[in-house]
Amino acid sequence: MKPGMHLERLADDFRRVRSQTEALAGPLSSEDQCVQSMPDASPTKWHRAHTTWFFETFVLAPSGIDIGSPSEYAVLFNSYYNAVGEQYHRPSRGMLTRPSNKDVAGYRARVDEEVLSLIDSGVSNEMAKRIELGIHHEQQHQELLLTDVKHLLSHNPLDPVYALDEHSSAPRPWATELTWVPNEGGVVPIGHADSSFHFDNEGPKHDVLLRPFELTKRLVNNAEYARFVDDGGYERPELWLSDGWTAVRDRGWKAPLYWQKQDGEWTAFTLHGRRRLSPTAPVSHVSYYEADAYARWAGARLPTEFEWESGSAEPEPYPLCGRHAYLHPKLPRIFYACWQWTSSGYSAYPSYRPVDGAIGEYNGKFMCGQYVLRGGSCVTPAGHVRRTYRNFFPPDARWQFSGIRLARDSEGTT
Amino acid sequence: MKPGMHLERLADDFRRVRSQTEALAGPLSSEDQCVQSMPDASPTKWHRAHTTWFFETFVLAPSGIDIGSPSEYAVLFNSYYNAVGEQYHRPSRGMLTRPSNKDVAGYRARVDEEVLSLIDSGVSNEMAKRIELGIHHEQQHQELLLTDVKHLLSHNPLDPVYALDEHSSAPRPWATELTWVPNEGGVVPIGHADSSFHFDNEGPKHDVLLRPFELTKRLVNNAEYARFVDDGGYERPELWLSDGWTAVRDRGWKAPLYWQKQDGEWTAFTLHGRRRLSPTAPVSHVSYYEADAYARWAGARLPTEFEWESGSAEPEPYPLCGRHAYLHPKLPRIFYACWQWTSSGYSAYPSYRPVDGAIGEYNGKFMCGQYVLRGGSCVTPAGHVRRTYRNFFPPDARWQFSGIRLARDSEGTT
Amino acid sequence: MKPGMHLERLADDFRRVRSQTEALAGPLSSEDQCVQSMPDASPTKWHRAHTTWFFETFVLAPSGIDIGSPSEYAVLFNSYYNAVGEQYHRPSRGMLTRPSNKDVAGYRARVDEEVLSLIDSGVSNEMAKRIELGIHHEQQHQELLLTDVKHLLSHNPLDPVYALDEHSSAPRPWATELTWVPNEGGVVPIGHADSSFHFDNEGPKHDVLLRPFELTKRLVNNAEYARFVDDGGYERPELWLSDGWTAVRDRGWKAPLYWQKQDGEWTAFTLHGRRRLSPTAPVSHVSYYEADAYARWAGARLPTEFEWESGSAEPEPYPLCGRHAYLHPKLPRIFYACWQWTSSGYSAYPSYRPVDGAIGEYNGKFMCGQYVLRGGSCVTPAGHVRRTYRNFFPPDARWQFSGIRLARDSEGTT
Amino acid sequence: MKPGMHLERLADDFRRVRSQTEALAGPLSSEDQCVQSMPDASPTKWHRAHTTWFFETFVLAPSGIDIGSPSEYAVLFNSYYNAVGEQYHRPSRGMLTRPSNKDVAGYRARVDEEVLSLIDSGVSNEMAKRIELGIHHEQQHQELLLTDVKHLLSHNPLDPVYALDEHSSAPRPWATELTWVPNEGGVVPIGHADSSFHFDNEGPKHDVLLRPFELTKRLVNNAEYARFVDDGGYERPELWLSDGWTAVRDRGWKAPLYWQKQDGEWTAFTLHGRRRLSPTAPVSHVSYYEADAYARWAGARLPTEFEWESGSAEPEPYPLCGRHAYLHPKLPRIFYACWQWTSSGYSAYPSYRPVDGAIGEYNGKFMCGQYVLRGGSCVTPAGHVRRTYRNFFPPDARWQFSGIRLARDSEGTT
Repeated sequence: MKPGMHLERLADDFRRVRSQTEALAGPLSSEDQCVQSMPDASPTKWHRAHTTWFFETFVLAPSGIDIGSPSEYAVLFNSYYNAVGEQYHRPSRGMLTRPSNKDVAGYRARVDEEVLSLIDSGVSNEMAKRIELGIHHEQQHQELLLTDVKHLLSHNPLDPVYALDEHSSAPRPWATELTWVPNEGGVVPIGHADSSFHFDNEGPKHDVLLRPFELTKRLVNNAEYARFVDDGGYERPELWLSDGWTAVRDRGWKAPLYWQKQDGEWTAFTLHGRRRLSPTAPVSHVSYYEADAYARWAGARLPTEFEWESGSAEPEPYPLCGRHAYLHPKLPRIFYACWQWTSSGYSAYPSYRPVDGAIGEYNGKFMCGQYVLRGGSCVTPAGHVRRTYRNFFPPDARWQFSGIRLARDSEGTT
Repeated sequence: MKPGMHLERLADDFRRVRSQTEALAGPLSSEDQCVQSMPDASPTKWHRAHTTWFFETFVLAPSGIDIGSPSEYAVLFNSYYNAVGEQYHRPSRGMLTRPSNKDVAGYRARVDEEVLSLIDSGVSNEMAKRIELGIHHEQQHQELLLTDVKHLLSHNPLDPVYALDEHSSAPRPWATELTWVPNEGGVVPIGHADSSFHFDNEGPKHDVLLRPFELTKRLVNNAEYARFVDDGGYERPELWLSDGWTAVRDRGWKAPLYWQKQDGEWTAFTLHGRRRLSPTAPVSHVSYYEADAYARWAGARLPTEFEWESGSAEPEPYPLCGRHAYLHPKLPRIFYACWQWTSSGYSAYPSYRPVDGAIGEYNGKFMCGQYVLRGGSCVTPAGHVRRTYRNFFPPDARWQFSGIRLARDSEGTT
Repeated sequence: MKPGMHLERLADDFRRVRSQTEALAGPLSSEDQCVQSMPDASPTKWHRAHTTWFFETFVLAPSGIDIGSPSEYAVLFNSYYNAVGEQYHRPSRGMLTRPSNKDVAGYRARVDEEVLSLIDSGVSNEMAKRIELGIHHEQQHQELLLTDVKHLLSHNPLDPVYALDEHSSAPRPWATELTWVPNEGGVVPIGHADSSFHFDNEGPKHDVLLRPFELTKRLVNNAEYARFVDDGGYERPELWLSDGWTAVRDRGWKAPLYWQKQDGEWTAFTLHGRRRLSPTAPVSHVSYYEADAYARWAGARLPTEFEWESGSAEPEPYPLCGRHAYLHPKLPRIFYACWQWTSSGYSAYPSYRPVDGAIGEYNGKFMCGQYVLRGGSCVTPAGHVRRTYRNFFPPDARWQFSGIRLARDSEGTT
Repeated sequence: MKPGMHLERLADDFRRVRSQTEALAGPLSSEDQCVQSMPDASPTKWHRAHTTWFFETFVLAPSGIDIGSPSEYAVLFNSYYNAVGEQYHRPSRGMLTRPSNKDVAGYRARVDEEVLSLIDSGVSNEMAKRIELGIHHEQQHQELLLTDVKHLLSHNPLDPVYALDEHSSAPRPWATELTWVPNEGGVVPIGHADSSFHFDNEGPKHDVLLRPFELTKRLVNNAEYARFVDDGGYERPELWLSDGWTAVRDRGWKAPLYWQKQDGEWTAFTLHGRRRLSPTAPVSHVSYYEADAYARWAGARLPTEFEWESGSAEPEPYPLCGRHAYLHPKLPRIFYACWQWTSSGYSAYPSYRPVDGAIGEYNGKFMCGQYVLRGGSCVTPAGHVRRTYRNFFPPDARWQFSGIRLARDSEGTT
């Protein structure tokens, strides 16, 4: 936490993020919040409890504060921190009908009260940093909460509606031509540079050498992607990575997740129910394999994460809270259109070292088998919008709001 | 429906069984009612909706009554009746957070009202029979509801309590010696004989030829079964069927389902939470494989279903409702101790013919790969207690209240 | 072994069966003999070694004769006898490129020599019985050898030919009308009665009570089965057992195993390569599920094993050896047409007791989850042809020469 | 093919590589050559046929030469080239007992004759390049042949011996201290620079920017790795990547593949049978996960492929053939000790473009989910030894001769 940060602001941020999570869960019944639709997804109730457990374990406990939670909570709501003990079997998170939704609300309230009183009592710098990490951690789970809920509801033939406000949680139309922005490359700085909040995987800051390249100004849209589908994109092995082609055949992919043809027209399941596709909205819910195949079909390629970072302008300062980008007119579109797959495998920056202890498990141990996504989506909390932010998912993941930005070598490069 | 049955009694039975289901669901939160713990089990909410769908589909619809259910219900709540259309993917029943618990309550109320008014208006004999079948069908689901809830709650490290009344839904102590009752065999009648209600698989009535045999008076109890465990029962392949031994190794079975050793003593998860084992209560939640291995270890065997039926006295008439056997002091113990595995594969009696149409799918198509259980358990509705009743489950099923009754050939038989 | 049996005949039988196995392996390269096409099947080389191990373990070893086999053989070639030690992982039998085919030939020769010299030296009655069991055991493996080889070769797009003599190992045409033979039922004797060789599962002899029934004189033929296929047999759930319908969908069954449509005509892979279907030959390579569905479609049912046994005449005495039924003109067709699925689950006859020790594992422990087949097939050694013989396979097994004989209740029975 | 290359040398190289493959298969029986031990491995016979098919398809067919192979060969021996048609199901390659080993030898001879006569007739530059690619392709399969055979034989409790000459195909002792070689980094050239043979994935040549780093001079040896094992390396989640820890638990890893403790001492299965571990030989048959965990335990890390390439000296010119490094005293140890996992995901170099047509499938489509290995092993053909060579395998692969070279940042770097 940077020197001079006022504890009042920390308390404010804490309060706002915590209540934002509750607001997101608001439209959901206790049933909606309890069920798990696949091992990779978690129930809303679990997200709410786990983010609370994070503060209890990494802030309250080290401060000597015991709020008297049932001893099982330490197992039930630990996600993957081996250093603080056993974890409940991840694919069974949906079995946890108890503690009830109401119990979890109480758990949240107790922890909130204690954390706020801890801040109020003049918390140490070290603890203030932990609280800030917990705030950002919870924002990550806010986004997951929405993607996981979307995945759950999509299984229901009743096409349930999460929320009626279509603008808040669906990619918005972006009606411009597809144009290319050139970049001359060279030795460019990569990684988070100043002392403002960032995750450890965004650093250390270092230089990389880039060749001249070009990036598209906007993302690939639904109409363009539909042309790929109509052109036999899912039936032509030469367009696909070998693993991607295996996924296409084994899982029967024929279009992005949530797309469905009804009466000859493409529809997509959204958090607002099933809707006709907007042709100018960015295509979303595609895997890395699909993004890569589309790029090949289009005679382009995906950018590296370094090209992406180097070719994107830093957004202006933004308030920590408020999840909906369109509330922030100055935020560049690229940060709330859709996450954008890059061709960079998720790995450590030079001289990267996770911190010691359980919190060191936050990022480092996932640096294998995943790809970096950059940018942000319609469900990304504003606090997670920055040029150096590294999101990451396995190449077959489709339930995130993941889309496609294209790159190409500048002419005459080779 | 037998001639002379009064429609008042039908309405009464309907009302009582329907409200009994709601009473069973009473202690459960909407979360508890929504989740599915394995493909073989169903959520409570689904049981409540499916039994309602049964009346809507097989009674109201053929009577021309449309209660305006959403069209998706016909798919969501159809269990396995191919003749009336598609079914929602069984292992995904737990995804159905909508319709909500409350919606299902409304669905039940609407159907109840219409069925009662149909009865009141003087229902045809054919429809009255269908309603009676629906009543018994719902009773079967009452038992499944409890076994499925037990299975769900058992996954929760919090050891949740379904109900505090221990006598109602746990095998009760039965403190007698293990004695043998001889039976001379011969040509004996098997199957349901009179016109009172029974499922089609209980007939046709026919004769079978039995050799002299003996049955135990009571079931194997926990103390006896624990001796089998202590004697290395789960480590000695010579005691097991080949498929049973494979199950033991592949699934790591070391004791009946729900048993757990705590501080050197056996406990079992029950609908009343985790409890110390009662040594004189019948062992329950064993598979056919375990029942068979125990019998071999004990120098005995399992009875055939014909021996069981021939060796058991018909219980006195009992009221249709009331699920707890101990409320009916005249009910023989064998009918509420635990279901008892027999060595008989579940197959058709000679000249068995399923009825035409969807209702013919009730029993016949399951006559493969399953074993017959006889008797009844602490969670069996009284209306399902009769000498000819054939319950059936696959040999590896353990989540039912299934126990062991032993048989042997009379001396000098071979 | 029955009193009075001459040891010369035992030696003769031993010699003939052992060389018959080698003759069956004759057309196969050492590669053909080494590979395993699925966990249920075994390589030819393994069959040859395992049947040899049987004599080594159950005859030579108890007689104090050590032929100096590598100690690993005891594990590698033990199929499922837990009482004599560990077994090599069954699905990996095809990994055993060593010992070589030639090594196994040497192993067979050494054991043959010792067994023959043991017989010659005047073997005890007990050991003579064991040798006789080993002979019959090897005959069972002769049949498996051929079904397993057929399964292996069928995977090869080159459609390899095992042998050119079409009559020896393919169901032969049987061009008669489908007629019904009535049987009055009553109390009938079941099981092997005299002291001639039989497996333990064929007894004890006992009576069962049968209602009047009818059996078809011949088996269902390919033309009849093709009509079932053309009538949408594999697309109509109402014709299938529930587990059968699951198998049809999950495994994509559309016709019997080995059938393939080429240029609009049905062909089948045979041990003689791929051939056009003979319309009058019995349908073969159907599962129990398919046999049951066909019977339902045809308005009939499968016989019980007791009906089958009671309704079949005992074949005349036949020589032990010679596998091809058509060499034995007096053998009734029913014994070499195809194995015939019965509706009887494979279970113990009343008072059945396996013998003590490892040999007791021969049959009893498989009495679960399988169905009895009666009769015999074109690849059944003549020594296995008798009225009381009980073959058994799981209901989804299709790689045996299994076909369909129909039954029905006599009119006026119900 | 570079201008001025003499066709005599091409013919010589072709002849030598083709006969080298046959020599490698020499010690194997036709059974050994036929069986497939896992989906990732292929039978020796298949390697021999596939490398032949490569010449037939990419050299002879485009030259208008038809050698009359059975039409099925085009499917059976196509590995993964979608552009030239269907492929036989990869996990079933071991089913192909036909064509026989002898047939494949004939196939090889026919193709050899035609290719040599084509060269002799003055082949075009384009075709000469294809032949050279085919030669290098076959060398890759020579290495796979040995790793696949090792994997197969390791399943056999008889511990079969492939060859008696221990030096040829096992990592050799390398008894030096573990010392570090510093490298100052900077902008360094990466990728194949001249016109000599290389695979397309080794280029285009380009610059990368490196920070100062250090590499170990030799690989981690067995004694060092055994200390990691003894220190609980396989039981401490904090040492592992998340996916790695899952692999450890799910697959029960406790040591490198092929290690086994016998009488308290570590042994390893080798192509020369089971042997005691040499403490100073490089550890081999570890996955990326294990290499990464070891490095973390040792307080170091794995090098990137760029560090590796930049920190390694180009070996002197070497003859194309001869597989055993120790025959070439001038070859640096690093090229025949063991392949060395790098921390670089396998991806395209900037401006990489696969060639058009089927041959473009050689490398590009595998650029996902794999890690680059550099160096070479005791079974690597000399022709594959160069500084820019990029081998690649998934992070859980252990059946290759893969070991560990360590890296670390130079002090004062961060």
